[in-house]
Amino acid sequence: MQFYKDGFRGGNPDIKTAAPNRRDRQDNAPLPEKVDVLIVGTGPAGLCLAAQLAQFPDISTMIVEASPSNIVKGKADGLNTRTMEMLQAFGIADTVKRETYWVNQTSFWMPDADQPDTIKRIGRVQDVTDDSSEMPHTLINQARLHQLFLDVMDNAPARLVPDYNLALKDLSIDTSTEDHPVTVTLEDTGVNWGETTTIRANYVVGCDGARSKTRKAIGGKLMGDAAHQAWGVMDILANTDFPDIRQKCLITSANHGNVLILPREGGYLFRMYVELDKLGDDERVSERGFSQDDMIATAKRIMNPYTIDVKEVVWWSIYEIGHRMTDRFDDVDKGLDRDPRVFTAGDACHTHSPKAGQGMNVSMQDTFNLGWKLAHVLQGRAKASLLRSYSAERWAEAKRLVDTDHEWARIMSAPPGTSDLDNGDEPRFMRAFKENLEFTGGLAVQYDESALIGPPTHQALATGEEIGRRFHSAPVVRAADAMQMQLGHAAEADGRWRLYAFAGKDDTALRNLANWLEKDPNSPVVKHTGSDEDIDAVIDLRAVFQKTFDQLDYENMPPLLKPQTGKLGLIDFEKVFCLDHKGAGDIYDMRGIDREAGCLIVVRPDQYIAHVLPLDHYDDLATFFAGILLPV
Amino acid sequence: MQFYKDGFRGGNPDIKTAAPNRRDRQDNAPLPEKVDVLIVGTGPAGLCLAAQLAQFPDISTMIVEASPSNIVKGKADGLNTRTMEMLQAFGIADTVKRETYWVNQTSFWMPDADQPDTIKRIGRVQDVTDDSSEMPHTLINQARLHQLFLDVMDNAPARLVPDYNLALKDLSIDTSTEDHPVTVTLEDTGVNWGETTTIRANYVVGCDGARSKTRKAIGGKLMGDAAHQAWGVMDILANTDFPDIRQKCLITSANHGNVLILPREGGYLFRMYVELDKLGDDERVSERGFSQDDMIATAKRIMNPYTIDVKEVVWWSIYEIGHRMTDRFDDVDKGLDRDPRVFTAGDACHTHSPKAGQGMNVSMQDTFNLGWKLAHVLQGRAKASLLRSYSAERWAEAKRLVDTDHEWARIMSAPPGTSDLDNGDEPRFMRAFKENLEFTGGLAVQYDESALIGPPTHQALATGEEIGRRFHSAPVVRAADAMQMQLGHAAEADGRWRLYAFAGKDDTALRNLANWLEKDPNSPVVKHTGSDEDIDAVIDLRAVFQKTFDQLDYENMPPLLKPQTGKLGLIDFEKVFCLDHKGAGDIYDMRGIDREAGCLIVVRPDQYIAHVLPLDHYDDLATFFAGILLPV
Repeated sequence: MQFYKDGFRGGNPDIKTAAPNRRDRQDNAPLPEKVDVLIVGTGPAGLCLAAQLAQFPDISTMIVEASPSNIVKGKADGLNTRTMEMLQAFGIADTVKRETYWVNQTSFWMPDADQPDTIKRIGRVQDVTDDSSEMPHTLINQARLHQLFLDVMDNAPARLVPDYNLALKDLSIDTSTEDHPVTVTLEDTGVNWGETTTIRANYVVGCDGARSKTRKAIGGKLMGDAAHQAWGVMDILANTDFPDIRQKCLITSANHGNVLILPREGGYLFRMYVELDKLGDDERVSERGFSQDDMIATAKRIMNPYTIDVKEVVWWSIYEIGHRMTDRFDDVDKGLDRDPRVFTAGDACHTHSPKAGQGMNVSMQDTFNLGWKLAHVLQGRAKASLLRSYSAERWAEAKRLVDTDHEWARIMSAPPGTSDLDNGDEPRFMRAFKENLEFTGGLAVQYDESALIGPPTHQALATGEEIGRRFHSAPVVRAADAMQMQLGHAAEADGRWRLYAFAGKDDTALRNLANWLEKDPNSPVVKHTGSDEDIDAVIDLRAVFQKTFDQLDYENMPPLLKPQTGKLGLIDFEKVFCLDHKGAGDIYDMRGIDREAGCLIVVRPDQYIAHVLPLDHYDDLATFFAGILLPV
Repeated sequence: MQFYKDGFRGGNPDIKTAAPNRRDRQDNAPLPEKVDVLIVGTGPAGLCLAAQLAQFPDISTMIVEASPSNIVKGKADGLNTRTMEMLQAFGIADTVKRETYWVNQTSFWMPDADQPDTIKRIGRVQDVTDDSSEMPHTLINQARLHQLFLDVMDNAPARLVPDYNLALKDLSIDTSTEDHPVTVTLEDTGVNWGETTTIRANYVVGCDGARSKTRKAIGGKLMGDAAHQAWGVMDILANTDFPDIRQKCLITSANHGNVLILPREGGYLFRMYVELDKLGDDERVSERGFSQDDMIATAKRIMNPYTIDVKEVVWWSIYEIGHRMTDRFDDVDKGLDRDPRVFTAGDACHTHSPKAGQGMNVSMQDTFNLGWKLAHVLQGRAKASLLRSYSAERWAEAKRLVDTDHEWARIMSAPPGTSDLDNGDEPRFMRAFKENLEFTGGLAVQYDESALIGPPTHQALATGEEIGRRFHSAPVVRAADAMQMQLGHAAEADGRWRLYAFAGKDDTALRNLANWLEKDPNSPVVKHTGSDEDIDAVIDLRAVFQKTFDQLDYENMPPLLKPQTGKLGLIDFEKVFCLDHKGAGDIYDMRGIDREAGCLIVVRPDQYIAHVLPLDHYDDLATFFAGILLPV
């Protein structure tokens, strides 16, 4: 991590210097009358967006929550590898890695053919495929994840904290003005219960869950399948002789249904999802009156011959699986040609079963997609039409999620067929699980070609870095200090674009590119960076050379690779990378980079690959950025 | 990390549940009249001890500091690999790893033979030898390290916080009583300046630096060489065309002396140690009136032809090298037969040049050695005579340090000889640096045979885990959850002994040992663990098997390897380890463990190897522990 750039300051480097213009948060200070962005809801979607926007103190952000405080327990718990990669950019992945349970193996249990009323392990699958991500798949108390985001917000220049006890009552959009056109009525849910306040916002983002009032206010409806399968979920501290209790387990019994076991942080706690009865066509789960005891009894029947001795039920809930989504994630009806002002994210616009562990992850990815776009528009770097891409990109992704999740829930809930028991083949649910790993890891997301995603013309220059998918990190060594690291970790959640330039068989093309980027009037760095800004404030060039650190002539780098930035104009020594020399792998081989020609990989602020280009295709590069960013 | 053992509790798991009997720390609450341990000084030695003792709320600990607060900058900055291993046990290594500069390579520069007034790189050395430690060598602002220890203290059950603005004035020991025999006079250095308070303590530990009043009060004197070489040290933010500025560099010029460069945390800051003039025999450095400008000018001359453009001088200081130590680290004169009551640690009993980066590291290792011994005695687990081993073990280590350091400083300060310049051999200082790496890493420490360190009779069973040296961690996989980890990280700074039992060619001997340990009246676990304590409260058995996690029959482990502990009696799933199956290495091969016979490695609470025994040498094991621990 880099700090002291503007001069030495002691203390925790994660606490950034506060911005002078931040909101007055002393007791009894009034609420703002106008804000740039109002976020509704402090779940993972809302907090991820707030953590992103809090980095930009020139954007006024407010986040409201109807509850009086952060949650303490329950709800979601899975962080897939893609989410972990994102948390790395927010600077909290190391803490999450330290505190969480890591899903290393998933274990599969089925009825024992010899004694079908008992279960037997039929196999295990490594949960994160080698080199699919540098990150683990982890499980954490959702409340703790919230707290880590709250810390990021509070440590950011804006010192952003939620306004609790404020619920969205209604909102209206005045399409005739560009000046804070959304009028929001907030209702006090605390001591001044029922009291309303009106706030005007440039943008509103509803992260207010499946019963989202934001969604309703813009005429959205969750549509789709209201499934009729009841499931129970339970976080417990319990002893058991079941040997795989500290592994993720999918257990199907012959006659009593299924259990999904998810070990949790701390070494003792685990979660069980227990399949309960099928519901009638018009029946709701609440009508059945399931209790925690029903759930434990069912789990015990399923896990026979193993026993469970429950010591503490930490949290439990019963729900139906529903796979539903809205037809758009913003306030602009199809066919209308205007830029959106109100957005929904997370459960507010798509719901699905927790079985594939996607809900919380996809919710955060929604707002990580939206955050930099809002920042670009509000900072005047891009036209407001950029915001149209949010619904376009995330709706398509949610649709795929809902479809896949539906299919997966069906496989999970189906009783094991005879074929699953008695032949040597891999049972269907184990096979399906393996086939789904890239999807459940959050790694399968691929955005379609658009102004933000270039055509695959030059994809062959980097076969392992697919345009439209997330930048796939790999090991490198930083030239200046011989530090072994992941190239992808150069990217922080700071709203900047990254250009990863890979040198070809000689370094000339890369050096020429760096010099062109620095000086040419047509260069996107020159065109889109303000004269009062650091040269890497918008577009951040990083170079990778086909040499090890002790072979590279680091003395003679183009100036853009040793830029002088910050108040003191200090040289930044973290722009140049080399091949790993300690056996971690060769990034060119691992990601299929063309060794002859090299290439340039353009990566969006949300870590998705926007383009792959030859190092000397200056015009293509300039044109691409001109399609998104405004000239300064 | 393990938590929720006594039931679920939300929030940051590093914050442990507060002990009900902890000191009242409300404003204006009185100081305690009696404490078990009074620590004088909040440098690394004092804070490391306080962080250790704060884990034991039944021990009342007070730590006083003459200054009004923690420091902000300056002083030491190097954390060698051994210290990092210790910080891992305190739970702060991950934070340190994230925030610090890592010394990956050390670069050597000497006069260019063709142009002797300029310098030239003559080579580089990997700073941490492969597999010498799983930890990096890091550099951090000392103030930040202090803060991390302060956080550990404040998060511990005792919620220990320093009492600032209190200096030790004097102390006296009443050898006729066992009831708080040390009377300490503390003097207010804050608003009530000069006001004195008297506190009685069972033990006092002087971590009060080179001018230690604790040392003086017990008649100790720093003796040895008062060197006559002046050095300047400076933390700066500066630009330079010197290409290795982000690597540790030893630079010797032909005629202007030497510079040592240490890059620091944050990517921009670096430290320079600059050799200044030789002093006359009776001259003190202060008489020379060196300024920061002198230092910068000298550095520029040495580093010719490279330039340095200083943007901010963060901190600087000038000092003489002195290599001095006291003849004992406690209050018991040689020849006297009584148990000590007062100790000194760190600079209070040994000083040396900062050039080899040892001072802060050795200081913390002093008190890490003392902490568990004090806890054992104060908790009634061991006789007070255990405390005699502190001075015995640490004095010998300090002596070796002072001698080596002296030699190293001499090599560093000597002008490069002709032979260093013009022949193909490695220059002397580069060779000496390499030969010293194990020493400077803090890894060469070896305690002599004693009641605490067994004889090397069975050393051949584990050739890579030497008795008397620190337990050398290696990769394993935890059986229950297939987690790749370092075996050494099973050890926390909790005052417990670890038994690492390595299975031989079959598991029988290990299983027999576990059952004997659990039940036999002669077993040290049975003899030294209270009936109201967890079975692993004093001696913590961990097992390593010669199988991978999917080959091991984890279902059928001896009860001591799946013990039920804590308020809820929950099964602990973190006692059993397997071979790494993902290419990280085979611990048996890496540490020379006998595959036929296996072995038992007994590790002290401070991570030093106390014994290596065959798995079935029950009597030897019982006898060893009976020589240290009292029966319950």
